[in-house]
Amino acid sequence: VKFDTVTLATVSLSILLLAHAAPGDAAARARDLGIPFEGIPGPLNAITDVPGVEVGHVTRLSGEGALEVGVGPIRTGVTVVLPRGRQGSEPAYGGFFALNGNGEVTGQSYLQDFGLIFGPIGISNTNAIGQVYAGIMQWSQWNRGRAIWPLVAETWDGDLNDIQGFHIGPEDAVQAVEVARSGPVQEGNVGGGTGMVCFAFKGGIGTASRRVGAAHFVGVLVQCNTGKREVLRIAGAPVGTEMANSWLPCYQADLAPAHRRPKCRDDGHGGKASPDQGSIIIVVGTNLPLTSNQLDRVARRAALALGRLGSYSGNESGDFIVAFSTEAAANEVDQSRNLDAVFQATVEATEEAIVNALVAARTMTGADGYRVYAIPHDELKAALRRYNRLN
Amino acid sequence: VKFDTVTLATVSLSILLLAHAAPGDAAARARDLGIPFEGIPGPLNAITDVPGVEVGHVTRLSGEGALEVGVGPIRTGVTVVLPRGRQGSEPAYGGFFALNGNGEVTGQSYLQDFGLIFGPIGISNTNAIGQVYAGIMQWSQWNRGRAIWPLVAETWDGDLNDIQGFHIGPEDAVQAVEVARSGPVQEGNVGGGTGMVCFAFKGGIGTASRRVGAAHFVGVLVQCNTGKREVLRIAGAPVGTEMANSWLPCYQADLAPAHRRPKCRDDGHGGKASPDQGSIIIVVGTNLPLTSNQLDRVARRAALALGRLGSYSGNESGDFIVAFSTEAAANEVDQSRNLDAVFQATVEATEEAIVNALVAARTMTGADGYRVYAIPHDELKAALRRYNRLN
Amino acid sequence: VKFDTVTLATVSLSILLLAHAAPGDAAARARDLGIPFEGIPGPLNAITDVPGVEVGHVTRLSGEGALEVGVGPIRTGVTVVLPRGRQGSEPAYGGFFALNGNGEVTGQSYLQDFGLIFGPIGISNTNAIGQVYAGIMQWSQWNRGRAIWPLVAETWDGDLNDIQGFHIGPEDAVQAVEVARSGPVQEGNVGGGTGMVCFAFKGGIGTASRRVGAAHFVGVLVQCNTGKREVLRIAGAPVGTEMANSWLPCYQADLAPAHRRPKCRDDGHGGKASPDQGSIIIVVGTNLPLTSNQLDRVARRAALALGRLGSYSGNESGDFIVAFSTEAAANEVDQSRNLDAVFQATVEATEEAIVNALVAARTMTGADGYRVYAIPHDELKAALRRYNRLN
Amino acid sequence: VKFDTVTLATVSLSILLLAHAAPGDAAARARDLGIPFEGIPGPLNAITDVPGVEVGHVTRLSGEGALEVGVGPIRTGVTVVLPRGRQGSEPAYGGFFALNGNGEVTGQSYLQDFGLIFGPIGISNTNAIGQVYAGIMQWSQWNRGRAIWPLVAETWDGDLNDIQGFHIGPEDAVQAVEVARSGPVQEGNVGGGTGMVCFAFKGGIGTASRRVGAAHFVGVLVQCNTGKREVLRIAGAPVGTEMANSWLPCYQADLAPAHRRPKCRDDGHGGKASPDQGSIIIVVGTNLPLTSNQLDRVARRAALALGRLGSYSGNESGDFIVAFSTEAAANEVDQSRNLDAVFQATVEATEEAIVNALVAARTMTGADGYRVYAIPHDELKAALRRYNRLN
Repeated sequence: VKFDTVTLATVSLSILLLAHAAPGDAAARARDLGIPFEGIPGPLNAITDVPGVEVGHVTRLSGEGALEVGVGPIRTGVTVVLPRGRQGSEPAYGGFFALNGNGEVTGQSYLQDFGLIFGPIGISNTNAIGQVYAGIMQWSQWNRGRAIWPLVAETWDGDLNDIQGFHIGPEDAVQAVEVARSGPVQEGNVGGGTGMVCFAFKGGIGTASRRVGAAHFVGVLVQCNTGKREVLRIAGAPVGTEMANSWLPCYQADLAPAHRRPKCRDDGHGGKASPDQGSIIIVVGTNLPLTSNQLDRVARRAALALGRLGSYSGNESGDFIVAFSTEAAANEVDQSRNLDAVFQATVEATEEAIVNALVAARTMTGADGYRVYAIPHDELKAALRRYNRLN
Repeated sequence: VKFDTVTLATVSLSILLLAHAAPGDAAARARDLGIPFEGIPGPLNAITDVPGVEVGHVTRLSGEGALEVGVGPIRTGVTVVLPRGRQGSEPAYGGFFALNGNGEVTGQSYLQDFGLIFGPIGISNTNAIGQVYAGIMQWSQWNRGRAIWPLVAETWDGDLNDIQGFHIGPEDAVQAVEVARSGPVQEGNVGGGTGMVCFAFKGGIGTASRRVGAAHFVGVLVQCNTGKREVLRIAGAPVGTEMANSWLPCYQADLAPAHRRPKCRDDGHGGKASPDQGSIIIVVGTNLPLTSNQLDRVARRAALALGRLGSYSGNESGDFIVAFSTEAAANEVDQSRNLDAVFQATVEATEEAIVNALVAARTMTGADGYRVYAIPHDELKAALRRYNRLN
Repeated sequence: VKFDTVTLATVSLSILLLAHAAPGDAAARARDLGIPFEGIPGPLNAITDVPGVEVGHVTRLSGEGALEVGVGPIRTGVTVVLPRGRQGSEPAYGGFFALNGNGEVTGQSYLQDFGLIFGPIGISNTNAIGQVYAGIMQWSQWNRGRAIWPLVAETWDGDLNDIQGFHIGPEDAVQAVEVARSGPVQEGNVGGGTGMVCFAFKGGIGTASRRVGAAHFVGVLVQCNTGKREVLRIAGAPVGTEMANSWLPCYQADLAPAHRRPKCRDDGHGGKASPDQGSIIIVVGTNLPLTSNQLDRVARRAALALGRLGSYSGNESGDFIVAFSTEAAANEVDQSRNLDAVFQATVEATEEAIVNALVAARTMTGADGYRVYAIPHDELKAALRRYNRLN
Repeated sequence: VKFDTVTLATVSLSILLLAHAAPGDAAARARDLGIPFEGIPGPLNAITDVPGVEVGHVTRLSGEGALEVGVGPIRTGVTVVLPRGRQGSEPAYGGFFALNGNGEVTGQSYLQDFGLIFGPIGISNTNAIGQVYAGIMQWSQWNRGRAIWPLVAETWDGDLNDIQGFHIGPEDAVQAVEVARSGPVQEGNVGGGTGMVCFAFKGGIGTASRRVGAAHFVGVLVQCNTGKREVLRIAGAPVGTEMANSWLPCYQADLAPAHRRPKCRDDGHGGKASPDQGSIIIVVGTNLPLTSNQLDRVARRAALALGRLGSYSGNESGDFIVAFSTEAAANEVDQSRNLDAVFQATVEATEEAIVNALVAARTMTGADGYRVYAIPHDELKAALRRYNRLN
């Protein structure tokens, strides 16, 4: 089965998609909890506030208990962002920043020299890069008749997911493109973010946006799998210190092999911070006309948001930002007066998107019974209140 | 007087140096106010905790009242950092990051291709780059017998200082090198930081350090002239929002020409945030053996500290980081296990160095009676206490 | 058959490999024709003169006549370079240069930040990037137990090959790794170079080396698919001008559909330069201990060899250089005295490797009867003689 | 006299300028000798074919015989290129490439992030960087009322010139700006090129241009101080090998101190290649509308011309290219169809400009009687004829 891929039946996929659109999730966004953020979000508070942007997720979930490579448990997926949607054949203008290069974003040289992004941006797990690349290339050849050099990024889900089983195939990337749509974006344990861990809480996909002027937006989508628990700041409050020893990852006793330690305890204490500090992929989009130089600079601002979260971007973390604009700038001088607003919006939306990923994610148990807890909303609110940072 | 330079007599310079070493300054460091920081500082909590590092300041202060280009008022200076001191002839290993390139750091190509820093790093005002470059080149030729490509950086002090008068000459840079020494580092309105403005408070030079293991240190020196008041976070608390409308720059009524607005008021309200968002130069040094690749990565971490301060690195701000190590790494793999500690120390020390610059600076009145207030320590402590962030 | 791959039987692969090792090829190297080159080659005049380096080719050839997407004709393959061979688990030190970014080399961020290359460097056709990436990732996971971010590069063979048929699968990359060996390297229509076109002559794989001191070598391997005929200079002689209108690509009358133009003529005139100017991938290896900074600089020198060939690196050409060293440099200063010798060797070996690719390649007829001629050795020698450039 | 500068009287400067405009120089261009070049030059075959471009030289020549630091002999100067002339206040669009970073080009970060070049590009000797920077900054402040971050580049003339005497001051840079004009450009021993050495022949300033379409030009200006004699290729012919041992630098017996070796011989043999391989600064300008990304790519092409000359860009050589356009591109896609023509024109014009610098330069004797010979035109023609490369 080495090169084969296990395809989830379309019906089960639909069920998963449905599950994530359930009413229970509707309220689960960071600002709904009363967390204070600066700036004015767009109507969806999502990257899809940027006109034309579409997001697609394919989520692969199956099995539980002991890890059997090639079988499962599977806790992974693919997320794609299409700057101009599935129908758009023109490129977007693009920029890039590698805050820490311990990971992969393909397609860099074309982006750097041409400043253009053709087609879908793919995000998945580390071992799926090639397959997602192949899928996007095939989709592009068959639908657009041309080769592109897609941007494919990854973070590592090998604690929860049978990553060495290579359960993502090119067809999953094609499927993610095919289901991409505008409108609200699912967050948390979905798509490429399915098995991700963020500041030692369950992480995954998050999104947010900011309005810049009357008709322009900056939108952000993150796949958060990074961060050390104890440094975490939310709205500036030292939440990580407050929760340094609770709800850390552990093994669920009834699922894990006997040698797996530590076992989960009912009181939420006794877990252990994952030794892997993971990675984060941040996609920033806007309909403000910006040059690729300016988009490189926008990309760097997302790093400042990671700074707000308390991150120091660990050596093992692949921390990358892709920025795009759907409008052409007349030249380098055009729009420069708006750059401060774009920069501020980028920092604010990235900060909120990461917190949204944390708030939306649900506790997950995966390979060998490894359990990663969602950040408990009540404890989070209590901590913020202690620092006068809850609306 | 176009190409000439007005030299302060050595005696007056000595007096200035003395003044800045007055006991009143001894306590004026951020952690002395009770501001909480993470990590363990070195004995001096300064970049000079890194063995061999020397810092020299030359401060140029004269005149008051109406601006007369070429005459004054003068509120400027030069700061130099010598990675191996004045006696060291070997290069240090170096890295670099340009968070926002609206400014100048010379010597970049040699640093990028060779990964080495020879001689003094100079920091002054924008119009003094050439003269400081010339001074360091001359010092190097005469003392080392060789040309170097010095790193010379700048931030703009043209609100307080007669910057178009070009009052810094090559001899000031040479003087700064000659007075450089190890030991405690003066902060605030000194050297290149003399006329600088940081988050619309009086800024300038700040420093801090962190211990990494038994005998290794990461030290940081900043020249802070950046930041928008309202975004300022100290220890995560939204201090800038709390002081958004007080102690903003204004013109002192008895010194400013009649047309200068707004005039300073006794209650500290009525000033206006400077339209220029300035710049910041950050120098990170360590005696941990790191390759130049790794030092490039260290340099990027200092940006995360700016993120902690709430900055979005404005379009008009030249935000640059130079990082150096005084020890050679055996290869790219050597020391990688220590990188997380170095990264975290860099973020922590940079955060504290910027706050130290704010806390150490004193209210200054310069050209046309322009006044920039020091952050009032009592109000700062009160604000931090409201957010449960004062020790 | 979309995601499936057609595997050539091992037996037919062996036959192909055998065919390329046939005695007729033994003499077909550029210096055997009397073309003058500077410097002293290693014993094999190949990248495998660098101790430990292994090269593997998988060649996929089948079908002829009209193009049927998904069926053929197939004229493609995969070449891998293993800096430390299949058994070596340590990384090599690496550098990179993108002369023109119209193409793909994956794995760039890790290379830039860590300066290390783990595992095989893969080279194939444009549409095979994802599959080759997947194959190398799988090989690495199964053989080394870890994810890597492989360097996978490509050039476009879509004139001769059914490139939209996606005939390369992950297993071809694994196979190329498995057959990699030290010793002589096949050149011309082999591996990734199978369907490539170089200065409008048949191109593909070429290699050469230079000795630097007693025990050190610089070796180069190219996959040449670039260049405009009329600018071609060999040994400085304007060979391209001399052959500007002969042996240009054309359609073989008995194989091509009727509408394909121009048809091949017996006199070699009447063809047309391919509108696509292709790309070139250059891999430079050495056992001199170099830092990754120095290897970045070595990579740039290979571009100077392209200059010697007369290239201007066209907009449509993805021209990339990967450089590696198998030995660790003590620090940035170590070996700098040897850099001139390394730089000169890199230029010389790259120049010869490209000419070797031209000289070794054989006329090939592919999809829709498209024919690309090998450079005729007799005419080449005659042209060089006219410019006093034949030994 | 440390920081002072010795100013040549205006009258002697005029004489120098006059001398260089003498009729004897009119024929001294490479193509006048019959050297074959590709492409169609503009009317002046100079960078000033690009509308609006102005070039200014200040040449400092005085003294002979033994070197006395601070006194002379002086063989140096400053050259400035103004993309939009002295009257133009708008920026040009800019790009950059550092082929080898052993040198200095200031102003890089602004160029990289903003893609704009304000004001004069200055080229002088290594020790004059700071002073030229200061002069351009002062000129800009006084004439434009704003700080800029000028591009100042250098090559080392310390064999012929008393470089440690620091004979260039800010006023020389201002003077070079003030005398800048459109029209024919002086070549050879002039301006910043006065004391430069190119492939161990006398070098200096050279220029050339190419027509691209009806009304567009690519122009190049070089300050050539690089290259190893034996690798030199002109029009592809191995001229350096032919002249490997003749007309190498030596000391003129009647001027040099006794210990200086080797002494010049009448037969032109017996000299020695300079151990320093110098540097080259290449400025490429065009009125084709290009983005800064595209101009970065144009800059890289000039390196291919160095390759044509046989260079391997030595470790000690600071080899830099600045490219600018005076027209704004609508976006990244605009003009891409013209890029091949621009790239080819850049390679061709750079190749010719370097040969022009060699052909225009005159034998010069400087400090300690050091003599650098001009390439003898007759011998050059004879060598080219042997390789069938003379029209």
